Amino acid sequence: MTGNIVIGQSGGPTSVINSSAAGVYKAAKAAGVGKVYGMIYGIQGFLDDKLLDLDEYLADDEGIELMKRTPAAFLGSCRFKLPPFAGNEDLYEKIFLRMEQYDISYMFYIGGNDSMDTVKMLSDYANRNNKKQKFIGVPKTIDNDLPITDHCPGYGSAAKYIATSVREIIRDNAVYGDYRTSILIVEIMGRNAGWLTAASALCKDESCEGVDLIYLPEVDFDIESFLKKVKALARVKKSIVIAVSEGIHFDDGTFVCEMEDHGNEGVDVFGHKQLSGCGVHLAAIIQKRLPYKARAVELSTLQRAAAHMASLTDINEAFMAGEAAFHAAEKGLSGKMVVFTRTDNPYTCGTDVSDIHNIANTEKKVPLEWIGEDGCSVTEEYLAYARPLILGELTPIFENGLPKHLIRK
Amino acid sequence: MTGNIVIGQSGGPTSVINSSAAGVYKAAKAAGVGKVYGMIYGIQGFLDDKLLDLDEYLADDEGIELMKRTPAAFLGSCRFKLPPFAGNEDLYEKIFLRMEQYDISYMFYIGGNDSMDTVKMLSDYANRNNKKQKFIGVPKTIDNDLPITDHCPGYGSAAKYIATSVREIIRDNAVYGDYRTSILIVEIMGRNAGWLTAASALCKDESCEGVDLIYLPEVDFDIESFLKKVKALARVKKSIVIAVSEGIHFDDGTFVCEMEDHGNEGVDVFGHKQLSGCGVHLAAIIQKRLPYKARAVELSTLQRAAAHMASLTDINEAFMAGEAAFHAAEKGLSGKMVVFTRTDNPYTCGTDVSDIHNIANTEKKVPLEWIGEDGCSVTEEYLAYARPLILGELTPIFENGLPKHLIRK
Repeated sequence: MTGNIVIGQSGGPTSVINSSAAGVYKAAKAAGVGKVYGMIYGIQGFLDDKLLDLDEYLADDEGIELMKRTPAAFLGSCRFKLPPFAGNEDLYEKIFLRMEQYDISYMFYIGGNDSMDTVKMLSDYANRNNKKQKFIGVPKTIDNDLPITDHCPGYGSAAKYIATSVREIIRDNAVYGDYRTSILIVEIMGRNAGWLTAASALCKDESCEGVDLIYLPEVDFDIESFLKKVKALARVKKSIVIAVSEGIHFDDGTFVCEMEDHGNEGVDVFGHKQLSGCGVHLAAIIQKRLPYKARAVELSTLQRAAAHMASLTDINEAFMAGEAAFHAAEKGLSGKMVVFTRTDNPYTCGTDVSDIHNIANTEKKVPLEWIGEDGCSVTEEYLAYARPLILGELTPIFENGLPKHLIRK
Repeated sequence: MTGNIVIGQSGGPTSVINSSAAGVYKAAKAAGVGKVYGMIYGIQGFLDDKLLDLDEYLADDEGIELMKRTPAAFLGSCRFKLPPFAGNEDLYEKIFLRMEQYDISYMFYIGGNDSMDTVKMLSDYANRNNKKQKFIGVPKTIDNDLPITDHCPGYGSAAKYIATSVREIIRDNAVYGDYRTSILIVEIMGRNAGWLTAASALCKDESCEGVDLIYLPEVDFDIESFLKKVKALARVKKSIVIAVSEGIHFDDGTFVCEMEDHGNEGVDVFGHKQLSGCGVHLAAIIQKRLPYKARAVELSTLQRAAAHMASLTDINEAFMAGEAAFHAAEKGLSGKMVVFTRTDNPYTCGTDVSDIHNIANTEKKVPLEWIGEDGCSVTEEYLAYARPLILGELTPIFENGLPKHLIRK
C-alpha cells in the first residue's frame, strides 16, 4: 500500500469504537504507513478539512491503552447521509480531492448500518469514476443489528453493562420482600432489534433470580396479555422486574411509547413523540389497572457509554476488527466490511470480509426461534450465543477515583 | 456484653449497607458473641419473627468479601415507622419479648433519618420501662443528609458512580461536536438535599470538561433564568450537560417535576405526581422555547445500586462504622448513632457516637456557602470535601463476566 490512510467514526457511539480505531492505527503503523489521519466528526468533518494526526495521541502504549478505555467517539461522529451521485458530483469530488490533498489511499470508516452506506457510496463512486482511493468498513453498533457478521463490536460491552445493572437493580427492587409488591420496568435501547433487551436475561444465575418478563420489538406487544402476566406473577412473587425494548409496538405498528391514551382517563403523555418512555407508560398503566406500585428505569445513554463496565472480549475483538480492516486494505480490497466469524466450544472469534452491498442499510433482528413461545423470554440458544461476548474486564485507569479518558486537545 | 445481638437494615438501599452489617458481625464474632442474628426486612420482619443466623453466610472470608460487594440490603429492608408509645405498648413489648426469646441484648440498626427514629423510639422505650436491651444506630444513606456525622456511608459510592457516569455521558454527548447543539439534562436523586447532584461536579478534570450547570434543591429554581443561561451557553459551545436534582422546586415550593404546564400549549405531563421526571420536563421546555434539541437521562435506582463502581474508601468506612457500633455496645452505650469525624491534608476518617435525639428525623443539606453565587455551581470547598470519599475501588468478583452477589437462600 502506498500513501497515507484516514480513519473515521460515524453514528451512535459505543464503548469500544475507539478500540477499533486503535486497531487500524496499530496495524497501519506496524506496516509502515506514513500518516494515519483521523477525521474529526466523520465524513462531515472530513469535507470541512477537519483532520488530526493520530500519532499525536496513539504513538505510545499509554495512548493506546487509554483509547481502548475511552467511550463514545474519540474522533467525534456524525449522522450524515451521502446523497445520490446524480447532481452531487461536486460533493463526491470534494471528498476525493481531500483524499488526494493528504495523499490518502484508504479510508476506514467505523460505524453501523447508516455508516456502511457511506462506505458503499464512496466505493461505488470510486469504481464508476476510476478513482484509485479505496474504502473499508469496520462494524460498530451496540444494537448488534448488522447482517452477515456473527455479532458487532460494541454489543458485548453494552450487554455486559445491561446484565450487570439489571442484576443490581433486581437486588434493589427485592429489598422490601414479603411486605410490598414492587414492579420495576427496565427500558432498554433497541428500536427494531431486541438484542440489547435480550441481554437482560444474562443476569440470571445462582447469584440472581433474573428478570421475570422480557419484551423484544420482534414480537407485537399486547397490553392485555401483558397485564395478565404481571397479575399472575404478582400472585406468586413480590419483586417483579420486567425488561422492555424502547421499540416495542402493537400489532398496528404503533410504538407503545407513542400511546396517547392508556385506556384510562387522567393519564396523558407528553405531546412530543420521541422514542423513549415506554417503560414509564407501562408503569403508569400497571398503576392504573392493577393494585400495585410500578416504577420505570431507563438505561438510556448510559448503556452505550459505560466504558467502565466494558467487556474485554468486546474491546479485543473491536481492536481485531480494526486490524483486520487494515489487512484487507493491504490486499487491495475496497467496498468491504470486516465481519466476525465464530466457533463454539470453545468460543473463538475470527474475521472475514463481506461486500458492503450486502450490509449497508440492512438490519439483523433477533431470530424468532430465539424468543420463547410465551413471547416474553429468550431461549438457551440466545444465551449460548451471548455469554462469551461479555467475558473479561479491562480495568479502567483510575485517577482521583474516576476512570481516565483520552480526549482531543 | 452478654447474650446475642441482632442486626437490621432499613430504608432505601445503598451499595455499602452490607459492608456495615459485615463490620458489626466481624467485630462481634471477634469479641466472642455467640449468635449474630440478622432481621429479615428490618424491624417489620423482626416483629414477624423473621431472623437468620449470619454465621450461615459470613463465617468465612469469602462470605464477607462477597457481602462487601453486594448492593441493596442483604437482609432485606423496610419502611416502617414505629408508632407513639401511648396505646401501642403491645407492639413495643412484642419487640422486647422477641429480643428476650433470642437472648438478644443489643440491636444494631443500619439506616438513614427514618431508621434512626426507630433506634430513638426503642431506646427511649427501654429507658422508660427499665428494659435492659440496648440499641445502636449505624448511618447509611446515599443522600448524605444525616446531621453531625461528617458524611454518610453510601454517599461516596453513589458519588463515584454519578461522577463516572456523568463523565461517560459527557463524552457521548460531545460526539457531534461542531455540527449539532446537544443539550443533555442529567437528573440525579436527592429530594431535599443536593449532595448527590453536587457530586456530578467531581467529573471535571483534564480528562473531562465537566458539567455546565448544576441545580440543587437548596436553591429555588427559576425557569427564565435557567433558559437564559442555557441560551448563553449555546452561543459558545455545542455540547451542554446540566445536572439537576430530582427535588428542584420553584420559590413557591412546587417541584419542577410537578409542573402541569410548561408555559406552552401542547405539552402536558403525566397526571400522577411522583418525584421523578424534572429532567424530562426541563428538556421539553428547552425544546419548546429554544431552537435546540434536548434530552434527559435519569440516573434513578442505578445510582444507589451500582456496587460495581463502589468507592473502596466508602466500603471500608461503612465496615468501620459497623465495627464502631459494636465497640460502642461493648461500652454499654444505647440510643447512640455512630458518626464520622475527619481530618484533611491528609484525609483521615474516624468514628465517634452521638445521641440519637440529635439525629433522628433531621436533615443536613448542602451548606449554601458551598453553592456558587450563580446558584448553579458548587465551590472548591465542596469538591475538597467530596474528593477523598470516592477514592479507591474494590474490584467485583466476576463470574461468567458479571459481578457476583451474596443472596439469602
